[in-house]
Amino acid sequence: MNTTATARQPGNMVNAFDPSNASGVPQRTRDMIARRQRLLGPAYRLFYANPVEVCRGQGVLLYDSEGNEYLDAYNNVVSIGHAHPKVAEAVSRQLGILCTHTRYLQDGILDFAEAILPTFGGRIGHLMMTCTGSEANDLAVRIAKHQTGRSGIIITSEAYHGNSELTASFSPSLGERSRLGTWVRRVDGPDSYRLDPATLGERMAAQVAHEVRELERRGEGLAAFIADSLFSSDGIYSDPVTLLAPVAEVVRKAGGLFIADEVQSGFGRSGTHLWGYQRHGIDPDIVTMGKPMGNGFPVAGVAVAPEVIQRFGQDMRYFNTFGGNTVAVAAAQATFDVIREEGLMANADAVGRYLRDGLAALAKQYAVIGDVRGTGLYIGVEMVRDRDTREPNREAALAVVNGLRERRVLISATGYHANTLKIRPPLVFAKSHADRLLTEIDAVLRTVAA
Amino acid sequence: MNTTATARQPGNMVNAFDPSNASGVPQRTRDMIARRQRLLGPAYRLFYANPVEVCRGQGVLLYDSEGNEYLDAYNNVVSIGHAHPKVAEAVSRQLGILCTHTRYLQDGILDFAEAILPTFGGRIGHLMMTCTGSEANDLAVRIAKHQTGRSGIIITSEAYHGNSELTASFSPSLGERSRLGTWVRRVDGPDSYRLDPATLGERMAAQVAHEVRELERRGEGLAAFIADSLFSSDGIYSDPVTLLAPVAEVVRKAGGLFIADEVQSGFGRSGTHLWGYQRHGIDPDIVTMGKPMGNGFPVAGVAVAPEVIQRFGQDMRYFNTFGGNTVAVAAAQATFDVIREEGLMANADAVGRYLRDGLAALAKQYAVIGDVRGTGLYIGVEMVRDRDTREPNREAALAVVNGLRERRVLISATGYHANTLKIRPPLVFAKSHADRLLTEIDAVLRTVAA
Repeated sequence: MNTTATARQPGNMVNAFDPSNASGVPQRTRDMIARRQRLLGPAYRLFYANPVEVCRGQGVLLYDSEGNEYLDAYNNVVSIGHAHPKVAEAVSRQLGILCTHTRYLQDGILDFAEAILPTFGGRIGHLMMTCTGSEANDLAVRIAKHQTGRSGIIITSEAYHGNSELTASFSPSLGERSRLGTWVRRVDGPDSYRLDPATLGERMAAQVAHEVRELERRGEGLAAFIADSLFSSDGIYSDPVTLLAPVAEVVRKAGGLFIADEVQSGFGRSGTHLWGYQRHGIDPDIVTMGKPMGNGFPVAGVAVAPEVIQRFGQDMRYFNTFGGNTVAVAAAQATFDVIREEGLMANADAVGRYLRDGLAALAKQYAVIGDVRGTGLYIGVEMVRDRDTREPNREAALAVVNGLRERRVLISATGYHANTLKIRPPLVFAKSHADRLLTEIDAVLRTVAA
Repeated sequence: MNTTATARQPGNMVNAFDPSNASGVPQRTRDMIARRQRLLGPAYRLFYANPVEVCRGQGVLLYDSEGNEYLDAYNNVVSIGHAHPKVAEAVSRQLGILCTHTRYLQDGILDFAEAILPTFGGRIGHLMMTCTGSEANDLAVRIAKHQTGRSGIIITSEAYHGNSELTASFSPSLGERSRLGTWVRRVDGPDSYRLDPATLGERMAAQVAHEVRELERRGEGLAAFIADSLFSSDGIYSDPVTLLAPVAEVVRKAGGLFIADEVQSGFGRSGTHLWGYQRHGIDPDIVTMGKPMGNGFPVAGVAVAPEVIQRFGQDMRYFNTFGGNTVAVAAAQATFDVIREEGLMANADAVGRYLRDGLAALAKQYAVIGDVRGTGLYIGVEMVRDRDTREPNREAALAVVNGLRERRVLISATGYHANTLKIRPPLVFAKSHADRLLTEIDAVLRTVAA
């Protein structure tokens, strides 16, 4: 495992397997990696110093080729649990009836839109369906640019919003060699561990106002501010919830749109609200969603205020061959039903609190833990060299991530310094799973120097 | 139905329902359209003057809410037939086992890559998986720009390559108000009906060479030429197959990449080759695929020559949450297996020839048919006002499309003038279906003035 103290290198990724450091990896794994490099090429990355072969899943458990069980405390896509029968049934049934697109009339997509649209509140009135969160953010920004006639986009410094050319251009977390757009301006991520939470909202609003002026001086102007309200790739900053209202006000005054990227924070992940931006009491112009929307089935969407899509809809059109097809809708409807029927948001709230309490207790024992934060089942644990200087401790974070992996518990790390543990299990994670996770973290921390 | 003689208006689409002209539409349909506009907003379009509600499908047949049967001679996504049990079974089985992403090791994606990569031949060596054809073309052009360090893209005049901002920027068929990139240059579509097929290759190569010089004069240079070898949105020009080799030579000499967009023409559609570019005997740098790849399951991909992805893979990375997930791979593998096991490429060849012969026979009766062209089960029938002037006849084409729809046969139209019938059924289309289609076209043509 690479344990150098530097921040990420160009092209590198938090918690990526390093092919030049494969000596400790079993032969079967090495063979699969070689086959993978031969067939899929050099742009793919694997997790962990010792990559995991996953063959089967059930609830929050995964199994490798030898039948070993892993506790999944990382995968937010399968938010209602691995291999949930309701999604399999809904998709299978609909595949046996009809799989076709939105240029024919169908009830399913309308029923789904009718179910989900009221959950946004505010001005949101229409649902458009895509296949991926990247497509959703790409479309959202296309709409914002067309509506405002401007090109400037403001983001946080380590944001991730997608893998299309447009969205990658405002996803600095893709690394130093992934070029940002000239029309992209960055503000600091809301580092609630190092800055005063009480003034973070004003601080970010002031930075956004500054970048708006810079965009205007360049004749570009502000098309949109876009943020994930959990700031996942900045390092997971769920609080303070007073952050985004002052920012939204600056954006509105500048005539830009506020895009709430709910690909990570949506569908109940935060525990208290179906949509993460609602914790901040704001009313965005556009909301994008993805990852957990079909529990792994490729389905995503854009919810938009009617006045914002009017011009785009008149001048252009949007068609996505698979977006909103009858089967994708069946997957999304089944997943959305399960989230509500099984009370998964409340579970995320309860188990998330329990887990954070347990982590806070561990923080009393281990000085390497600088901060425990998060909401619902999206939790960040920041590792530091020293609690006074708060210097990031990337090695400790990666040691915990890889130590847990060897004990068959899956999490990852995040943030520019890759020093924050990212704990983000399926929403069906129970207290017993939290106990197991805490026990294993404890065991690993005992071996990690502060 | 709108039958004005003008070409398409900004924002309009070939064969789109016109909401301002809904008087002849049944009340149930009108109610659904109103509900749809309320929920999905103004950017969605429906097919036909009288939109179709589709509820169920089987093979090449579709059924509406009253149980009426439609012959599907249009949908190329469900290429192995509506509701094929093998795809439903494969997807359902895999959803019950595991649905997860490519940052864990899995055999399935490697087995699929191993099966499909040898079919490309030439220099293609790696497979990357996305969810949609738009994502595939977006990634292909990102790779081309990164590899060449240039930004210029050359396309045909009415090309369609996707709905992301990048791909929409080189998809002029999206309409006059969908802005092209400043770095996009267009050459004429290969109008084999009006120009000499024997010199079309030289002609396009000369135009490409000219645009390369223009790009170089602007300091942009050629990153890539991208084309669908059937030129679907230009008007369906499958021949001559001597077209693309001279173009590829110019592109290669200019240091640009040749991207074969096989989203429409791939997976045996052309009848004689699995990949449409192979009819032209060329060796592209990148091949993109999509639509029929999972028979409606959202799965797509990019196949690339190893030397072309090296730099991208080193400097950046590509991760697509759902792209190449275990379930998407299961859908793609099942579809690919069925195409080969059921001999669907040979069927496309045989039934395509039979259908074109039948259409040629109709052309002897009806002077409104100017040209019948295509390969396999991708067929264009160009409607003209006069066979001598070859003036496009948009009204006749739309009258046939909508007349067939009233007789419960589904096709559409294409080309800048929307005057070419687009016939593109699932590959399981049998001679009996071709007979039914020909009979109905005959019946409609009797009512259409030349």
